[in-house]
Amino acid sequence: MPKLVDHVSRRRTIAGAAVQVIGELGLDAARLVDVARVGLVTTGAVTHYFDSKDALLEAALLEVVTRILESQAETGEASLNSGELIDTIAAFLPLDQASLRDWRVWFAFSGRAVLNERLRSLHRQYYDEITRRLGQQLANLQARSQLAADADLGVLSDAIVAVIDGLGVRATLEPESWSPDRQKATLRLMLSPLLKSPRPN
Amino acid sequence: MPKLVDHVSRRRTIAGAAVQVIGELGLDAARLVDVARVGLVTTGAVTHYFDSKDALLEAALLEVVTRILESQAETGEASLNSGELIDTIAAFLPLDQASLRDWRVWFAFSGRAVLNERLRSLHRQYYDEITRRLGQQLANLQARSQLAADADLGVLSDAIVAVIDGLGVRATLEPESWSPDRQKATLRLMLSPLLKSPRPN
Repeated sequence: MPKLVDHVSRRRTIAGAAVQVIGELGLDAARLVDVARVGLVTTGAVTHYFDSKDALLEAALLEVVTRILESQAETGEASLNSGELIDTIAAFLPLDQASLRDWRVWFAFSGRAVLNERLRSLHRQYYDEITRRLGQQLANLQARSQLAADADLGVLSDAIVAVIDGLGVRATLEPESWSPDRQKATLRLMLSPLLKSPRPN
Repeated sequence: MPKLVDHVSRRRTIAGAAVQVIGELGLDAARLVDVARVGLVTTGAVTHYFDSKDALLEAALLEVVTRILESQAETGEASLNSGELIDTIAAFLPLDQASLRDWRVWFAFSGRAVLNERLRSLHRQYYDEITRRLGQQLANLQARSQLAADADLGVLSDAIVAVIDGLGVRATLEPESWSPDRQKATLRLMLSPLLKSPRPN
């Protein structure tokens, strides 16, 4: 008798397969039969869990977001210094094949979200959550006097999220020109002055 | 007898109509008949100039890019100080309805470019041109000692372009939350430390 956990795990398996297929073939070319093949399930199982391409896309984005938040959660409670925080932020960038695929899913999703209210609202929720967690990290730095007491954490969080997106966009569209080193150097150049300690040494 | 300039101007009129239609309806929903209606031409004229949806999309992006480069060209040769340069950069952001529409076209284009080599190469050319012009402005600042002599202009240009993209992405997807003031405040926070004079007063 199938348990609840099996359903949850089945859904996530299919969503993970959707990430792989959409990230490799693009949304237009991605077919349910490809997702079924990669997920080692029947096409019927895919349509049972996801009744439209938008539903599957939604699940794929949720899978990408869940992975990012899970990986970030490990460092979420730690007291990071600025350098460590920049390293944590760098982990959002498309530094390897797997994260490049995730970014392509994000592209497919946000391209569609521009004109779809439901997808746009999910997108906003995701950004709000990322920004909230980042704000918490910044507040930790500030509480330990490693960030100017008058720094506006809201604007600063916005700025950091914008930097991640801007670099991610370039690196996803020009992966051949944007090595991990180039991405990280540009990130560091932008964030170091924003996250500098008010009392050097 | 039609002259060459008429052809060029006809093409541009249709491309401008495509920007309007794609920016308002999205690429999937945009039909050639809508472009013809907005451009005040026949559907036959649209298909005469653009033989596929990708060709029309390409022309629409070129139109957006041409407008941006034309508007930037006016200040291109002037000797800007850092504050003026930041204002020039702000003009790239989706600060009004017209530029928001242009950004939506960019979204449609880049979403498709992820997996289309030809569109991707156009995208790259556009970014190279923007980055080159920005590098020139930065070199001007540096020559007048308004930017540290050891600033790496390549990384700095990359950083600025990333900031524009990151803010543009957010503001296009959440226009109701990203007022022009919020966009400009975030831009200023990020760019001021990067473009600061090596000798304050």
